[in-house]
Amino acid sequence: MKKKQLLTADEYINGIKSGDRFILSRAITLIESNNKKHRQLAQKIMAGCAGSDQNSFRIGITGSPGVGKSTFIEKLGSSLIEGGHRLAVLTIDPSSQVTKGSILGDKTRMNILSASENAFVRPSPSGGTLGGVARNTRETIGLCEAAGYDMVFVETVGVGQSEISVHYMTDLFLLLLLPGAGDELQGIKKGVVEMADLFIVNKSDGDREKLAERTRRSYVNALRLFPLKDKDSRPEVYTCSAISGKGIPEVVGALEAYAEQEETIQNNRLIQDKYWLRQSIESGLIASFFDHPLLKEALAKEEKCIMEGKTSPFEAAERLLELFKQKPK
Amino acid sequence: MKKKQLLTADEYINGIKSGDRFILSRAITLIESNNKKHRQLAQKIMAGCAGSDQNSFRIGITGSPGVGKSTFIEKLGSSLIEGGHRLAVLTIDPSSQVTKGSILGDKTRMNILSASENAFVRPSPSGGTLGGVARNTRETIGLCEAAGYDMVFVETVGVGQSEISVHYMTDLFLLLLLPGAGDELQGIKKGVVEMADLFIVNKSDGDREKLAERTRRSYVNALRLFPLKDKDSRPEVYTCSAISGKGIPEVVGALEAYAEQEETIQNNRLIQDKYWLRQSIESGLIASFFDHPLLKEALAKEEKCIMEGKTSPFEAAERLLELFKQKPK
Repeated sequence: MKKKQLLTADEYINGIKSGDRFILSRAITLIESNNKKHRQLAQKIMAGCAGSDQNSFRIGITGSPGVGKSTFIEKLGSSLIEGGHRLAVLTIDPSSQVTKGSILGDKTRMNILSASENAFVRPSPSGGTLGGVARNTRETIGLCEAAGYDMVFVETVGVGQSEISVHYMTDLFLLLLLPGAGDELQGIKKGVVEMADLFIVNKSDGDREKLAERTRRSYVNALRLFPLKDKDSRPEVYTCSAISGKGIPEVVGALEAYAEQEETIQNNRLIQDKYWLRQSIESGLIASFFDHPLLKEALAKEEKCIMEGKTSPFEAAERLLELFKQKPK
Repeated sequence: MKKKQLLTADEYINGIKSGDRFILSRAITLIESNNKKHRQLAQKIMAGCAGSDQNSFRIGITGSPGVGKSTFIEKLGSSLIEGGHRLAVLTIDPSSQVTKGSILGDKTRMNILSASENAFVRPSPSGGTLGGVARNTRETIGLCEAAGYDMVFVETVGVGQSEISVHYMTDLFLLLLLPGAGDELQGIKKGVVEMADLFIVNKSDGDREKLAERTRRSYVNALRLFPLKDKDSRPEVYTCSAISGKGIPEVVGALEAYAEQEETIQNNRLIQDKYWLRQSIESGLIASFFDHPLLKEALAKEEKCIMEGKTSPFEAAERLLELFKQKPK
């Protein structure tokens, strides 16, 4: 493939703002690049696209493999588009960093959306650290919003660390469940359930309709006992079938109602920005400590002393921090 | 009061190991001291007392105000002592840092234990940061074990950040609840419920016995739905009355069964030591960044740019970390 010429920042910005999906794609590739020149250009593009997020709504979607996420996203996404929305679907799948097979997979598993004029489907690139992928996705959201996508789905698989990142970059976190109370959470990591704003029991069709309703009620009861989020309203629980479409209009209604709470959303996004700033600083500080050869060696020695009962972890930490302060720059 | 002469490290160590509660108390005061000389002496004492934790069991106890923690601890503690155990009760109450009233309070609210030859009751000192209090308590546990206390309770109030610390310094985390499903968790912070290994519905007496049993069953069901801990066994739920004593023998039995899992306990403690080392390093690094005047100023500027959409939190973090690296030592 011929190497594409870079455009100027203004050309990217104007292209994105006019809704050119090809230019949007190329700008996202710059965000994902490890090349410093590309990153600097991406930074200019992002600055030029800032402030386009006023009327957008970001939805994190997770669930175990087998719960029917792709079908659900196709169905829900199609309904939103019919209702006049424009939808961007971004996916974070850390497991694809191993198989390197997610890009083709994502494109083919969302046929309808991939073919729609009003949808933009973009998987996260394979490879890279979770922190890097999260950062790229967070920045990609901004460009999609500048391109006029007012609904943004960030899809992830409910088995890893990526849910926390997705939770901190979306306005609403939706957990998709299977009918059958009690066992359905086995594939979902501790912590994911707590982040959910909206629980949806999928596959409520045919024989499973009654079971889905029982599951829904069990969740409503359990949520009364374990208030999972520090907020005023309890998470809601719906049932739906992504195959038959039953229950999908209710989900659309719920999402649109959430999207109208603009003040809450904007406040929450400011908190999220502070989280990312703080998070990036802290992980940078920690890396500068734990990646330092001198400190690695000293840490191993202190850990040995702790195991032998010769020192307390607190005293060991004090000595290591002193060493960090004195280390050559 | 006349200022007491310090003993030598060996005198403290021998005194503690022979079970002298007066010397134990004085050594704990050294741990809690901000005086550098005292801290160094405390460090020597701790090193001399290390390795005494083989047959001890540490239990974190929390619950909302009004749940009857003191009465429960008195009753449970008395039963353990009758069964041949020696019990140390340490309390962490961050709220007492404000009122400065916890010491007298704790002593008077546990009359029986305070008077027993086989119990040692010690509240955390008022004042100091939570990190400091946690550290002191963690180190105090070691001295109590060297003094022959094989059961250690660390009590905290279920409303703050201290539960996480207590969770990381105990072998089992016990959450005390009131009868009446649905509302009883209102005073308990999100996150506390997840840490619990053992739920006990207290005040199961008189009229409330049936309600307590219903509450117990609700918890058992909800725990099936929300597996709160990443481990093989689900947390157990008991009912008891600290007033009538009903159910207390079952709780004692459960605790003794847990205490027998020595290998699990020792493995978990090694993980905890690594947590404290890492935790202390991280909080030290973060403090060295956020407490630096130059960085404080730069951070405020970057935050302003983020709010105005002029930069992304990630780029801001990169610039701040670079500044941190270049700052004068």
